[in-house]
This record gives sequence, C-alpha cells and structure tokens, in this order.
Amino acid sequence: MRIVRFGRGSWGVVEGEVIRVTRGPAGPFTGKKVLLSEVKLLPPARPTKIVCVGRNYRKHAEEMGEEVPPEPGLFLKAPNALAAPGADIPYPSFTKSFHYEGELAVVIGRRMRRVPEEKALSYVLGYTCALDLTARDVQKTDLQWIRAKSADGFCPLGPWIETELDPSDLALRTFVNGEIRQNSRTSMMIFSVPFLLSYITRFMTLEPGDVLLTGTPEGVGELRVGDEVAVEIEGIGRLSVHIVPSE
Amino acid sequence: MRIVRFGRGSWGVVEGEVIRVTRGPAGPFTGKKVLLSEVKLLPPARPTKIVCVGRNYRKHAEEMGEEVPPEPGLFLKAPNALAAPGADIPYPSFTKSFHYEGELAVVIGRRMRRVPEEKALSYVLGYTCALDLTARDVQKTDLQWIRAKSADGFCPLGPWIETELDPSDLALRTFVNGEIRQNSRTSMMIFSVPFLLSYITRFMTLEPGDVLLTGTPEGVGELRVGDEVAVEIEGIGRLSVHIVPSE
Repeated sequence: MRIVRFGRGSWGVVEGEVIRVTRGPAGPFTGKKVLLSEVKLLPPARPTKIVCVGRNYRKHAEEMGEEVPPEPGLFLKAPNALAAPGADIPYPSFTKSFHYEGELAVVIGRRMRRVPEEKALSYVLGYTCALDLTARDVQKTDLQWIRAKSADGFCPLGPWIETELDPSDLALRTFVNGEIRQNSRTSMMIFSVPFLLSYITRFMTLEPGDVLLTGTPEGVGELRVGDEVAVEIEGIGRLSVHIVPSE
Repeated sequence: MRIVRFGRGSWGVVEGEVIRVTRGPAGPFTGKKVLLSEVKLLPPARPTKIVCVGRNYRKHAEEMGEEVPPEPGLFLKAPNALAAPGADIPYPSFTKSFHYEGELAVVIGRRMRRVPEEKALSYVLGYTCALDLTARDVQKTDLQWIRAKSADGFCPLGPWIETELDPSDLALRTFVNGEIRQNSRTSMMIFSVPFLLSYITRFMTLEPGDVLLTGTPEGVGELRVGDEVAVEIEGIGRLSVHIVPSE
C-alpha cells in the first residue's frame, strides 16, 4: 500500500493513477477519489521529530575521513526542515557548500519505547525516500549540526509511504540533473533498521509519524542553483526537488 | 498573566490559588474554575521543537574549559524530552554523570521567520523555567548531543508561562536539595533573547508553542538518585523535579 499526503493535508492510498482518500494516514476510506496527477503532494508524515544517523555506510564514513563508529551516531532534524516532493529549495544564504545525501526514511506507526530489535519492524508504518540536505561548511564550524542539518527545507520527504517492503536490501540511487551520483544498497548499512530503532527507543520514545533517516552512502557532493536532485529507492519510487536562488 | 497547562491537557490562567480554565493557551475563558493545589501541572507548552543555546553565559563557558563563541551555538531537544513540574525523573541507565543546568525558557506565541531583533519580543507568548538535564559523559563521546540532551524526561519545563515580564535582567538560581548551586542573572547572557530569536529565525521558522532554552550560568554539577533539583527565576516562580532510580 502506498500512503500519500496531499493538498491541504488530506491522506489517501495510491492505486495506479488514482488516490482513494482516507481519514488519516492509515484510516478508513472516505469514498472520495482524486487523480494523482492533479494534486500537490506533501511530505507523507507529520513527525514530532526526525532522528537521523550519521556515518551508517562504511564507504561514506571513509569519504568523509571518519572512522566507522562503534555505535550509531545520531542527530536530530526538527519538523521545520520538511519539504514536499517537487519542492523548490532556496540555496541557503549562510552556506557556500550545500550537499545532497540520499537516504531511506522509516515512518513510525505505533509508539515505541524500549522495543527489542526482533520486534522493531512491527512498529513501522512504512518507508519513503529522503534527502538529508546539509550545509557542509557550517557543519564543521557550528557547535552542533542545527543550521547545517535542520534549516527550513533541509529534509525533502516522499513521494509516499510504501507499507509492504523489506528494508534490508534495496537499491538506493541519487541523481543530480539526471547524472548518477550515489549508487548503493541498504544492505551496506553498518547498523540495520531494526537495530537502529531498538537502540534509539532505549532512551527516546518514538511517536506515530516520527521519521528515522538511516544514513547516506558514498557519493555525496555539491548542489548549485538550478540543479534537480532526486533519490530513487527500489520498491518505493522517486523523490526530487529543485535548488532555486536564495530568498 | 500566568498561563498553565494541567490535567489531561487543559489550559488556564492562574489567579492566586485558582485556575480560570481557558480554551487553548491564550484563549477565552470557559467559565470553569479549579483550585491550583488540586491539579497536576503539565509542561506549559506543546512545542514542535526546543531550540537550545550552549555556552551563553561567559562563566559557564569558562567552567567547561570552552571559548566564548563568536555566534550562538545551538542544539535541539525534541518534545519527548519534556517533563512536568514535580516529575520523577529516572536516573538514566546510560550515563554515570547526570547534570542539572537551570535556564530561562522562552515560549513562542506567533510564527517567526526572519524577524529582526527589535521586533522579536513581540512574538513571544511568555517565559518559564527549564532544566536542561544533560548526560555529561556521553555528551563528550557521542557524535552529537542527542542521547546527552534529548532523552525522555531531559527537559522539565514550568510551572507556568509568565506573559508580563522583561527577560533582560532576572535573578536565576538553581538548588539541589535546597542548597544553592547556580546563582546568576539573565543580564549575564552573552547573546540576549531578542538577538537569539532573530538569529535562529534567519534559517529556522519558529512555530507557536516552540521553546527556546537560553543557556545556563556557571555552577552546573552532578545529580544523584534521591535529589530534588529546582530552578527559580525572578518574576516567574519555581520548577522542581526529583531524581529517582533507573527504570
């Protein structure tokens, strides 16, 4: 099942070219239908927090000159960072090094607190694509990664939540202006999705709609004004945004 | 005006020993009244994010062996960290160095985006007390300050929002078991409340209910199981919590 959020905050399920409208993200059908091509998609989650994992692909840690961590290295994005599929993202005025990072995103379905690894996936609503946009220069100079990772628009998410998916070995590719830049598989993660969820919920309750970004593979790089950046994940689909001039 | 949140999520205004119940945090009165002594207070805000400032008092930066920063050093707590006035906070199992930091908290009243410093205070709903609880050991070893600062219960907030207050020069004191440990004034902040709000909203939209923690003065230190820790701010009141054994 593919769950979308669209328009002014409606939810629905995609069936071919049609959206069957639902009450809430996994609610009953209202009986209404709309054409997918005629609506504006929104980020398919309303998180209280977005928990992200740094250095979760060995070759990305290597390209950043970092060691592979002994346990997950987490950071947060706040909901202001969300951006819709197809959004125009202004090149931030405070950076001279704006990077894309394509990632698998996990959307939580039920409240999670101290959930063991073997039960973790049963709490997941589904999976979608994310871009962890990053101001690489201020990431190095600021005290923590807030401006670098959680400025407005730094977390494009979508196009929909795919609920029927095994996240353990999916192709993940990122394109800039149609040219492939990241090309890996989720099987290359250092810490698996169930392990990450179990680790996080030892100390942090996850709420329905919360989002986990699972880290990016090697091949990160610069964005310029005018670029189209897209991430495609096997079994989910394609999320793309455009970089436009600073506001 | 003192705005409280209590019970199962009701809002009201404190008048002496009585709460006059309102619809929403600054809404009209419902006509109902309850006794302040007979309700359980909740954190007086429902933020989408809690933006915090590190090293905003010169003597605290010095006690931590850090330089005074050229611009604000921000970090995030997520809403899972909130705890109510009077809460029992379990000593976290993942740390051996659990610290209190007493802070002035600012609650946002209207959406803020690119607001100049001279207009910033007109977007504020009011002020309350906060404890920025911190796992000092993992703060030094983790990639970012997530487990160290945003674990469940790491942000006690309250007891109420005081709306009629100039935040620029208020006495701030923290007590452990009645013994004074932090004793400073908000006039000792390196970056003022209006400057911080203006700085943050250059890149991050603040929503109604969002909370800014303005940093802690010198005198931070260890908490033990059984401790009562309290922060008192002039013109607001007193927030206290108890440290209880690990879950």
